[in-house]
Amino acid sequence: MEMKQRLKCIVAYDGSQFAGYQRQPNDRTVQGELEHAISRILKCPIVVHASGRTDAGVHAHGQVMHFDSHLIIPAERWVKAINKLLPPDIHIRHVEVVPMDDYGFHARFSAVGKEYRYRLKTLPPYEYDPCERRYVTYIYHRVDVEYMRQAADIFIGTHDFRTFAANPIGHNCVRTITEITITEDENGIEFIFKGNGFLRYMVRSIVGTLLEVGRDRLTLEQVHNLLRNRERKQCRWTAPAQGLTLWEVSYE
Amino acid sequence: MEMKQRLKCIVAYDGSQFAGYQRQPNDRTVQGELEHAISRILKCPIVVHASGRTDAGVHAHGQVMHFDSHLIIPAERWVKAINKLLPPDIHIRHVEVVPMDDYGFHARFSAVGKEYRYRLKTLPPYEYDPCERRYVTYIYHRVDVEYMRQAADIFIGTHDFRTFAANPIGHNCVRTITEITITEDENGIEFIFKGNGFLRYMVRSIVGTLLEVGRDRLTLEQVHNLLRNRERKQCRWTAPAQGLTLWEVSYE
Repeated sequence: MEMKQRLKCIVAYDGSQFAGYQRQPNDRTVQGELEHAISRILKCPIVVHASGRTDAGVHAHGQVMHFDSHLIIPAERWVKAINKLLPPDIHIRHVEVVPMDDYGFHARFSAVGKEYRYRLKTLPPYEYDPCERRYVTYIYHRVDVEYMRQAADIFIGTHDFRTFAANPIGHNCVRTITEITITEDENGIEFIFKGNGFLRYMVRSIVGTLLEVGRDRLTLEQVHNLLRNRERKQCRWTAPAQGLTLWEVSYE
Repeated sequence: MEMKQRLKCIVAYDGSQFAGYQRQPNDRTVQGELEHAISRILKCPIVVHASGRTDAGVHAHGQVMHFDSHLIIPAERWVKAINKLLPPDIHIRHVEVVPMDDYGFHARFSAVGKEYRYRLKTLPPYEYDPCERRYVTYIYHRVDVEYMRQAADIFIGTHDFRTFAANPIGHNCVRTITEITITEDENGIEFIFKGNGFLRYMVRSIVGTLLEVGRDRLTLEQVHNLLRNRERKQCRWTAPAQGLTLWEVSYE
């Protein structure tokens, strides 16, 4: 019987020049680059499994993926070997061997929590910086951060989030958000989202909605209704991709 | 007689996707983009004059340039009008009307000081971040920051810097460096250079030399000799472009 190992990898990437995470035949994707690099080491085609997809322009600090290898290589050597074959906008931060039996590790199905961060600057008081444009969303009006915090509390807990999902039809849209923290300092405004999982566009749609509150175009009552009504078409605000980073995926 | 105005502009840019500042027939350059945008407003060809060139991959927070306009437009309107026509990696931060008589303002000839900043991270203890790779230079060894500070002091004052210049032959290479500050914090190592002017490659060659000191491959005595010997070929270390930013240009 052939020996095999399952490797869990923590991956950072700059999403600016990818057509998203998921492999596509004619586009440059994170999955495509990872599979290309690892299959060169293993000398056979390989599939990598991530905790979830990220959209075009979305970055990752701590995306997690796994793959199975018929070669037994120490984890530290994997880090160097894969990074050597990856382009500069993807980086393997950590590799470890994980169980691969029936109750073993799966990057997607074993994940119990995720953290996303969203960076934002308002003009004024912040200044547009061309070197930051891929990593921060600039908006052209002031926002009331304290009022946004009150609206953010509405989302905490277990809800059907289909109002804020890209393709809710026929999907289970119940998720639990445990934390939304909004901080403001000289680097701008940062949203931290923690929960057991997030639907496609969910973080960006909630940020977009909170920004409407922050500029006094939605009331707390209206946000309550949006969540309660569970109608995607009622949420018309999706914040741009470039401010968003998949920060961390947690496992038991 | 036609009315004319001279406009001084403070310009920020992300140098990553430019073949440098200076206009070139077949390459994307900062000067080319600025002239293209402004000439569309003035409806005639225009030349912009910068405080100096920056090389491919070098960024600017406070580059200064001027141009002459036959249209009299308020300075604040210039900011918006030019930015609307510029690509997202160049941004006009400020425009003001300056004198254009014989003793008037010239972005290059009136400049009395420049500040450059160079950002660096060492692996370890810092971690490679794909989103920062265009704005920070990563090096794969530790450096002794205190020893680099001692070496930096050697460059302070008025010297013939031809050892550290790209094309010294036939040029006056005497410049005055008034300050080199090296700080280290959780964001890495930053060099701040202030002086009356810097030759092409001068900041990057001095940073490259200081890094050799920092890893104990050059002594303070050898750095003294490099400066004194005034032989370009003796300096073989030029730090990469991406860590460098033209931070500010000062005028009387």
